[in-house]
Amino acid sequence: MDTEKMGAAARSAARILGVAGTAVKNKALDAMANALEANADSIIAANRTDLDNAKQNGMKDSLMDRLRLTPERIAGMADGVRQVAALADPVGEVIEGSVRPNGMKIQRVRVPLGVVGIIFEARPNVTSDAAALCLKSGNACILRGGKEAIHSNMAIADVLRQAVASAGLPADCIQLVSDTSRESANQMMRMNGYLDVLIPRGGAGLIKAVVRNSTVPVIETGVGNCHVYVDSTADTDMAANIIYNAKTSRPSVCNAIETILVHKDIAQKALPVIKARLDDKKVEIRGCERTAAILGECVIPATDEDYATEFLDYILACRVVDSLDEAIDHIAKYSTGHSECIVTSDYFSAEKFTSSVDSAAVYVNCSTRFTDGGEFGLGAEIGISTQKLHARGPMGIRQLTSSKFIIQGDGQIR
Amino acid sequence: MDTEKMGAAARSAARILGVAGTAVKNKALDAMANALEANADSIIAANRTDLDNAKQNGMKDSLMDRLRLTPERIAGMADGVRQVAALADPVGEVIEGSVRPNGMKIQRVRVPLGVVGIIFEARPNVTSDAAALCLKSGNACILRGGKEAIHSNMAIADVLRQAVASAGLPADCIQLVSDTSRESANQMMRMNGYLDVLIPRGGAGLIKAVVRNSTVPVIETGVGNCHVYVDSTADTDMAANIIYNAKTSRPSVCNAIETILVHKDIAQKALPVIKARLDDKKVEIRGCERTAAILGECVIPATDEDYATEFLDYILACRVVDSLDEAIDHIAKYSTGHSECIVTSDYFSAEKFTSSVDSAAVYVNCSTRFTDGGEFGLGAEIGISTQKLHARGPMGIRQLTSSKFIIQGDGQIR
Repeated sequence: MDTEKMGAAARSAARILGVAGTAVKNKALDAMANALEANADSIIAANRTDLDNAKQNGMKDSLMDRLRLTPERIAGMADGVRQVAALADPVGEVIEGSVRPNGMKIQRVRVPLGVVGIIFEARPNVTSDAAALCLKSGNACILRGGKEAIHSNMAIADVLRQAVASAGLPADCIQLVSDTSRESANQMMRMNGYLDVLIPRGGAGLIKAVVRNSTVPVIETGVGNCHVYVDSTADTDMAANIIYNAKTSRPSVCNAIETILVHKDIAQKALPVIKARLDDKKVEIRGCERTAAILGECVIPATDEDYATEFLDYILACRVVDSLDEAIDHIAKYSTGHSECIVTSDYFSAEKFTSSVDSAAVYVNCSTRFTDGGEFGLGAEIGISTQKLHARGPMGIRQLTSSKFIIQGDGQIR
Repeated sequence: MDTEKMGAAARSAARILGVAGTAVKNKALDAMANALEANADSIIAANRTDLDNAKQNGMKDSLMDRLRLTPERIAGMADGVRQVAALADPVGEVIEGSVRPNGMKIQRVRVPLGVVGIIFEARPNVTSDAAALCLKSGNACILRGGKEAIHSNMAIADVLRQAVASAGLPADCIQLVSDTSRESANQMMRMNGYLDVLIPRGGAGLIKAVVRNSTVPVIETGVGNCHVYVDSTADTDMAANIIYNAKTSRPSVCNAIETILVHKDIAQKALPVIKARLDDKKVEIRGCERTAAILGECVIPATDEDYATEFLDYILACRVVDSLDEAIDHIAKYSTGHSECIVTSDYFSAEKFTSSVDSAAVYVNCSTRFTDGGEFGLGAEIGISTQKLHARGPMGIRQLTSSKFIIQGDGQIR
């Protein structure tokens, strides 16, 4: 990977894209969407190479399915790009402004970050999603996908680059790293001066490696050890409903829950109701002794490690707690700061939980599965930040921007 | 340095401080200010030890002066803390909110970052400034100053910790690292899970080392290779005045300018006027050939490296350019993204410069020396960010916060 060449090309594309108007950017996005559909056959042909290789390498069926592109999925990618075109342009927004005592007018104005690097894993649709979000927010991007999807990603990137050029913007607004070696990822992590931010999208291993090794500023995304706390005053059916939804509607995603905490005063009544719902999906329960005393032998004893684990599976840890405070302490100890929920009818419990729990999204009486850019009304999302710097929670295109101060005077000196 | 112990103590203090009300925090800040004044003698005694050591080690007079504490300087530190107490509390601000189609109410609320690490160099007043800003914004802090000021810093930190405890908050809201070895700085850079952000305050070497080695998210501060561009339509006197101020009022600071770019159509008229002003302070000019052709032998030939250098001294690089575009390109190539200024009478030049120059602060017709939290009306500042992530430009207490989403429902599932 020639990082200097790609970096310099991205920087120079970013300077043009950064001051491009919304109309031009939307024209490019429309061209991208149309080009994806027009070139569906060649993209699917490239995808077939990836699928053949995957099969030879013995990839699991579930992963093969994520890798597979069909005409419908490509149409879905094109629709995603059109949805990004329809979003309001964040660039140029005047965030705040004032006149200083000496007459200088100060404005803080939203500007693109510049060049965004994204390292992602198997799914090829990320290529078009990420490219579209970056382009709309005025950022050039350097994308590096997984080796499993390299033929698909290259075909998609080629199509998108041509479309961007046809709209009069530099093709280098979108660049894909063709080298999928570990070394190329490490090189991206050292592209200070070229990359303004690096966003890893994928499993915990990838994210950890990027956080540990990158000298470029990173936005940490995704890992979610999420909790539901069932307060003593909870509506039992609501609690069971929320827990069932948050655990089983899609167990493999980061906003699914991994542990429930149940107040001792309601445990006897609530746990059997919750268990009955979870039995529908054969959810394995790993519980504390008090959980086992109520639910019986089906409960596997929970270890400390269970409470710290993002199962991403039909497994749920369960602990009976003496108080709201104990629940809050448990969450402070084990949570990854993604999403937590309290089910309660009590005003003061709701207040205390939302004030004291320090996670990106804190829910009262609704499912943690809503932690998502689309569900929050931000439009498509580039990821869910679990760090506190820059962006926290679902990141839409506004989170792909920075700001600058513009100061107008008539000769002021200090 | 026992990072785990300090980190755990900071985390647990941050949980209490993070939900403390403004009244309690202000009480602590008042106590801190009063305690600094009440203990001025013991702080000055500790400072004397540092000064004696510095003298033995042959420290330069100018650095000795920065290290020295007097009753007046301690009163100034106390005033600084009181000014922070007077600032509005950013914590709890509702940044935005909406009701989703399914009835969920979403708010984004400002919260503290958590634990802030600051690595700084010689000046002991940073200890009280940084501690006050962190405390007001609800953040515990771990401070590591330079070894030259260690006795002063420890005396100040002790006084501040006692004051914080007297107001009913944990003393560990403020911790100072007593080990000033390089190893302790490296350890801080690896305190993921304990530190939410690390802010280096000091010279280019320190900042570079932290950016390169830290796995904790960093806010890069300070380095300023700043420019003034004199447009063909500039008021010559205004240009000379701004350049004189921006170069000579305090050459050692990051918002001082290092290079001027002068449009060829005004160079013949403007350069001698500018030079005459700069001669007052014997500013050395390192210029291009066209500069030398106008100003004569006094001009030292400028190299590429001169254009890339933050002189922090009475030295100014100068280049005559053919156009506004050439000036913008020069800035894109050499600037560190801190502060740049155009002096012009032309509406379109001003617009183009402010749109195209991608720096934290972009000025029209006023001195770059205004890039400062106080001058911008943010109150005291913790530093000036030259990165694009999280904060850009002067950072006040609001830039020491993150946000979280609070979502209230009545049983919604996805």
